[in-house]
Amino acid sequence: MTITPLQPTARTSLRREKRRAATERSALYDVLAEGMFCHLGVVMDGAPLVLPTAYGVDLDRGPDGTLYLHGSVAARSVVAAPEQTVCVTVTHADGLVLARSAFHHSVNYRSAVIFGVPRLVTDPEEKLHGLNRIVDHLIPGRSSGTRAPNRKELAKTSVLALTLTEASVKTRSGEANDEPDDLDLPHWTGVVPLRVVAGEPITNSDCDLLVPAHVRTRANQLGAPS
Amino acid sequence: MTITPLQPTARTSLRREKRRAATERSALYDVLAEGMFCHLGVVMDGAPLVLPTAYGVDLDRGPDGTLYLHGSVAARSVVAAPEQTVCVTVTHADGLVLARSAFHHSVNYRSAVIFGVPRLVTDPEEKLHGLNRIVDHLIPGRSSGTRAPNRKELAKTSVLALTLTEASVKTRSGEANDEPDDLDLPHWTGVVPLRVVAGEPITNSDCDLLVPAHVRTRANQLGAPS
Repeated sequence: MTITPLQPTARTSLRREKRRAATERSALYDVLAEGMFCHLGVVMDGAPLVLPTAYGVDLDRGPDGTLYLHGSVAARSVVAAPEQTVCVTVTHADGLVLARSAFHHSVNYRSAVIFGVPRLVTDPEEKLHGLNRIVDHLIPGRSSGTRAPNRKELAKTSVLALTLTEASVKTRSGEANDEPDDLDLPHWTGVVPLRVVAGEPITNSDCDLLVPAHVRTRANQLGAPS
Repeated sequence: MTITPLQPTARTSLRREKRRAATERSALYDVLAEGMFCHLGVVMDGAPLVLPTAYGVDLDRGPDGTLYLHGSVAARSVVAAPEQTVCVTVTHADGLVLARSAFHHSVNYRSAVIFGVPRLVTDPEEKLHGLNRIVDHLIPGRSSGTRAPNRKELAKTSVLALTLTEASVKTRSGEANDEPDDLDLPHWTGVVPLRVVAGEPITNSDCDLLVPAHVRTRANQLGAPS
């Protein structure tokens, strides 16, 4: 695929703090690649509804790539309003930024916001593909280390597809910024880094197999002690 | 305050997997107490917009307690539509649940969803109170370890208040569940625990103070090496 820059639309253009906006499409893909869950926003009976769900990515499907969402949580609203725009947000909280003044307290983060009208995936082959992308996004290689869904299970699962066309990425990183007048205040300033880490994998009580390589690799990548 | 049970409304009642619903109000407060950020959903020009933001809680304000949101991100939409219902979602991802079948893959999580029409806090005293709650939610004790906002800074900040009346809490915990027919499959099953941890606090390059106790305590509570 050709990577085109992010093309801001009215709703993805940042009105505040434009310096925090990333303009490269690769920034979007990076935020998605590192995230594990998203928050999906839909409109239900005129009010917003925001629910967490899992996702996967296929950058080779469509001109800008496709986001697959495990959509059971949203399927009811999407089926009810198939032409409805949804909003998908993926956020990494990277650190608490403590300034000398309360006002300049901030958060180091990376977040991606994607808008689009999702497509309910009905083709069984694409549905399986989307589900595999979602499972493998969480644990790379897992889709080959598990029993694939049968026809009945596929029918019970909803997968939504969203093109990665209309999106924005916003980040903040680095030190706290203080007012020049505040530099001599007796208040500590700095960053408390945050990250999501995995613990040691816990084998089910009814399973006597060893933790397989794909699970061990992922847990270690997420910081589990090896 | 008296803790009343969560009273489900049409939109906070779970249609799927009712066994995952918590009915005690304390479950809501626990999810909020442990979370650091929320995802705030608003409707803008007919489409949902979901943005991450910081929050604080005051359980003694209002019959069910009050959620304060650092609302600059949403203030534009809330000012534009002050009677607008918003949705605030706080999610803890506690673990990846790997079953023997792809279909039974799941996530251990705790999530709270709160609906309400937020109030833009205009009273300077309550605004300061709300901001302190937000800062102290992230780092308990921090509001006394920093310069308080001056009038100009207060005017530049938006705080939203939302009553914790209409809310639902959903959780999943424990092992993977498999189909009885799948128990002998040669696939490992178990849980990869996840949590958010803090790293060692990083002092700003322009600061020569030692990390204070309130920062050290919070970092250690979040798993930083002491």
